[in-house]
Amino acid sequence: MTQCDKSTAAKPQKLNRKAAENYGSENYGKLPLNKSQERTGVQRTRIIDINASRAGETVSIRARVHTSRVTGKIGFFVFRHQDSTIQGVLQVDEKVVSKGFVKFAANVPDESIVIIEGVVSKPNEEIKSTTVSDAELQIKKFYVVHETLGRLPFSLEDASRCEEEINKEDSQFSRVTLETRLNHRVVDLRTTANHGIFRIQSGVCQLFREFLLSKSFIEIHTPKIVGASSEGGANVFAIKYFKGSAYLAQSPQLYKQMCICSDFERVFEIAPVFRAEDSNTHRHMTEFVGLDLEMAFEEHYHEVLDILDELFVFIFDGLKTRFASEIETVKRQYPSTNFEYLPKTLRLDFKEAVQLLRDHERFLGKLIKEKYNTDFYIIDKFPLAVRPFYTMQDPYDKNYSNSYDFFMRGQEILSGAQRIHDPTLLEEHAKELGVDLRSIQPYVDSFKRGAPPHAGGGIGLERVVMLYLNLDDIRRCSLFPRDPKRLEP
Amino acid sequence: MTQCDKSTAAKPQKLNRKAAENYGSENYGKLPLNKSQERTGVQRTRIIDINASRAGETVSIRARVHTSRVTGKIGFFVFRHQDSTIQGVLQVDEKVVSKGFVKFAANVPDESIVIIEGVVSKPNEEIKSTTVSDAELQIKKFYVVHETLGRLPFSLEDASRCEEEINKEDSQFSRVTLETRLNHRVVDLRTTANHGIFRIQSGVCQLFREFLLSKSFIEIHTPKIVGASSEGGANVFAIKYFKGSAYLAQSPQLYKQMCICSDFERVFEIAPVFRAEDSNTHRHMTEFVGLDLEMAFEEHYHEVLDILDELFVFIFDGLKTRFASEIETVKRQYPSTNFEYLPKTLRLDFKEAVQLLRDHERFLGKLIKEKYNTDFYIIDKFPLAVRPFYTMQDPYDKNYSNSYDFFMRGQEILSGAQRIHDPTLLEEHAKELGVDLRSIQPYVDSFKRGAPPHAGGGIGLERVVMLYLNLDDIRRCSLFPRDPKRLEP
Repeated sequence: MTQCDKSTAAKPQKLNRKAAENYGSENYGKLPLNKSQERTGVQRTRIIDINASRAGETVSIRARVHTSRVTGKIGFFVFRHQDSTIQGVLQVDEKVVSKGFVKFAANVPDESIVIIEGVVSKPNEEIKSTTVSDAELQIKKFYVVHETLGRLPFSLEDASRCEEEINKEDSQFSRVTLETRLNHRVVDLRTTANHGIFRIQSGVCQLFREFLLSKSFIEIHTPKIVGASSEGGANVFAIKYFKGSAYLAQSPQLYKQMCICSDFERVFEIAPVFRAEDSNTHRHMTEFVGLDLEMAFEEHYHEVLDILDELFVFIFDGLKTRFASEIETVKRQYPSTNFEYLPKTLRLDFKEAVQLLRDHERFLGKLIKEKYNTDFYIIDKFPLAVRPFYTMQDPYDKNYSNSYDFFMRGQEILSGAQRIHDPTLLEEHAKELGVDLRSIQPYVDSFKRGAPPHAGGGIGLERVVMLYLNLDDIRRCSLFPRDPKRLEP
Repeated sequence: MTQCDKSTAAKPQKLNRKAAENYGSENYGKLPLNKSQERTGVQRTRIIDINASRAGETVSIRARVHTSRVTGKIGFFVFRHQDSTIQGVLQVDEKVVSKGFVKFAANVPDESIVIIEGVVSKPNEEIKSTTVSDAELQIKKFYVVHETLGRLPFSLEDASRCEEEINKEDSQFSRVTLETRLNHRVVDLRTTANHGIFRIQSGVCQLFREFLLSKSFIEIHTPKIVGASSEGGANVFAIKYFKGSAYLAQSPQLYKQMCICSDFERVFEIAPVFRAEDSNTHRHMTEFVGLDLEMAFEEHYHEVLDILDELFVFIFDGLKTRFASEIETVKRQYPSTNFEYLPKTLRLDFKEAVQLLRDHERFLGKLIKEKYNTDFYIIDKFPLAVRPFYTMQDPYDKNYSNSYDFFMRGQEILSGAQRIHDPTLLEEHAKELGVDLRSIQPYVDSFKRGAPPHAGGGIGLERVVMLYLNLDDIRRCSLFPRDPKRLEP
């Protein structure tokens, strides 16, 4: 392949090739680097919009070369755009496609970005290896927009292979490990399953907000740099802050409650949360996205619990209807059972579940699935002793508390409670639990200015996505995950 | 006032008072601390929903005591809920309201949270000091939900006073300074203007997303903890990260571009951005909210510029129609001219604006306002030398670049550009500008895997809100602002 001279003219560059092969040389080649040389208003077709009904039509697509297989005068290509793929056929003819054209195309490395012009045609039989199965492209023009350099860390075909196929006893395929994927995340993220996962992640946020905005919540943004490590002091990252020091917020807990003290009544936030916890498990990261909310109520914290419950059912309903195709895409690589839930969510009191819960959190999920056929349930009324210092005690049994956890497939995805809104009781309870009062003084003081009863919760976004799709590691649901051993890329 | 005994019974507590005054004692008092004792399904009325047409109706509201003035047998109260206020009248009668009742109510400190039951009535004349002007409440029941402790740092009346009134030559009012407000932010945030500001802020985010989701963007979340200070190295906060060190991301720039390399095509993020800049001005903070987006394009970066332009017009239109009442509320305290913009945004090339822009950024805004009657315009094609290393040069003049800034009221609120998507050119240009290549290697490598031409921009949320409302300090648009000297509350 020849070198690109990076001229500024936006015309495909002619390549130096034998005169005999040189007809139609304007139909292929490497485009000069795009510096926005011109704007013609060209319209491209998305692969997803191509099907048999458009046979005969000439279309122009921008896509990646997913795979190519060229033998002599004919080449078969798979072009990919996001989660869609289509087959392209390039065949030597006497006017448009020269041998030189085919040779050029054969040498374009996988994953390069190309612009293909072709005629839509119906294949003789259904194409099973591409998402567009009833149409292919007869390639007439083939331009390289941007070429990959060097060897890819793994092929997209390998990275996209179904887990079941890899796990077969006689499987000839080895797995692209999570470690390798994360080391080369930019390539890994191109798989259709990953596009599905992150569209679903975007969808969860969208549904979360849509529901809460419809319930008169407002979106807030609270500081991530804080002056004191306010929630117990452990597991907090320290920052050098000019001549002093500061910390990274472990949650927006105190600030969202302060917004309640400022009469915002119903607030939510979607923001990063930082935990300096040296846990190297499949479900811990040092940075994740928190979906947080807090709400004043009139009489009983179950007013808030009801909203949270409704919120999740809204999210699950929305995923099922709006993201059905993404869910299917993920399942093609990571097969799993559908996520089941009940129109009226199962709620258990902690006492009902206590023996099983403590040591067998996941086992409880299994039991409940068998008995009620749901992957989603709520446990209410945890013992006071196992909850943070700002949790309100049960009015009738001081060993218990007005707190709750939500579970998906047996794992906790939301933790929440009624909070103590009285400064005297808050100080007392903090003291009992050994919390350093000095570090929480501005927080305690907020309640001296009068506060309504309120409750709320915090949700881990990546956990929701992981458990909804039944994936095995939370890192698969974070674009660029962070853990005690990973800061790159 | 007697002490609350915090019993768990959710009945108002009888007070110890003279027998003669003791009729109707069940109609007032301090409620026990709410621990979710019971759930009766009580319905409260919002102040904003009360008007003259409901005269004669008995309603129950939860509100704060904004002000109270009691003389002998009659008391006038203003009750506040978020940005609504209503007058309440409490008058001694022979059956329900005893002298003891009035005395109790008179002693409830301002800003306490109360539940008031009353009969809606038409006042003799329009009430100008409350937002509900054609109705007041004849108070029948008066319960304290949560009482303020100690002296308030300032009264809400003082904190809500119109700037024009304070600035009058013969004004008897002194200003509650921004410093004092921020020191007691939980109280300050209760003003109706602040409720307006933060609902507008929430609205900007909502409109931003609504527009971009309709244009097939997806929402992403990129890491805030990064292994290398990737954008030049200056102004970055360092973190202790287990046994090593890390940094706080100064923008999602590199990561959102990596998502483009992973074929997400159109991405946006709303997330905190951190700058360790020792600037103590009215428009700098060390942490703010970035509205970022990045988009692959077909031919020309103006495809992206058009989307950004349309986005802002959509936001401005949406604010005007959906947040008209909040804008009016803010203006009542901070009077300003309407924000003006054109249906077709004014765009100037840098060269056209060059002399004025460099030293007189704000002056240019004034000139443009006079000539075109717009507070919003775009400047395109900045000199390459003043832009970051990843900016694409102009195809026809290498001293200029495919970069742009957006301005509101003469101040920059968006900065963006076509980015260099070729690794060789990127390395060359980084070297020329003295950027340490080792620190950006994973970023440069992303482009070796093939990347489409792309452009994007980053918007400062608080700046947009500040300039839209013509406020004098960005801290007024951050719930809990952070600057080199402020980490609390």
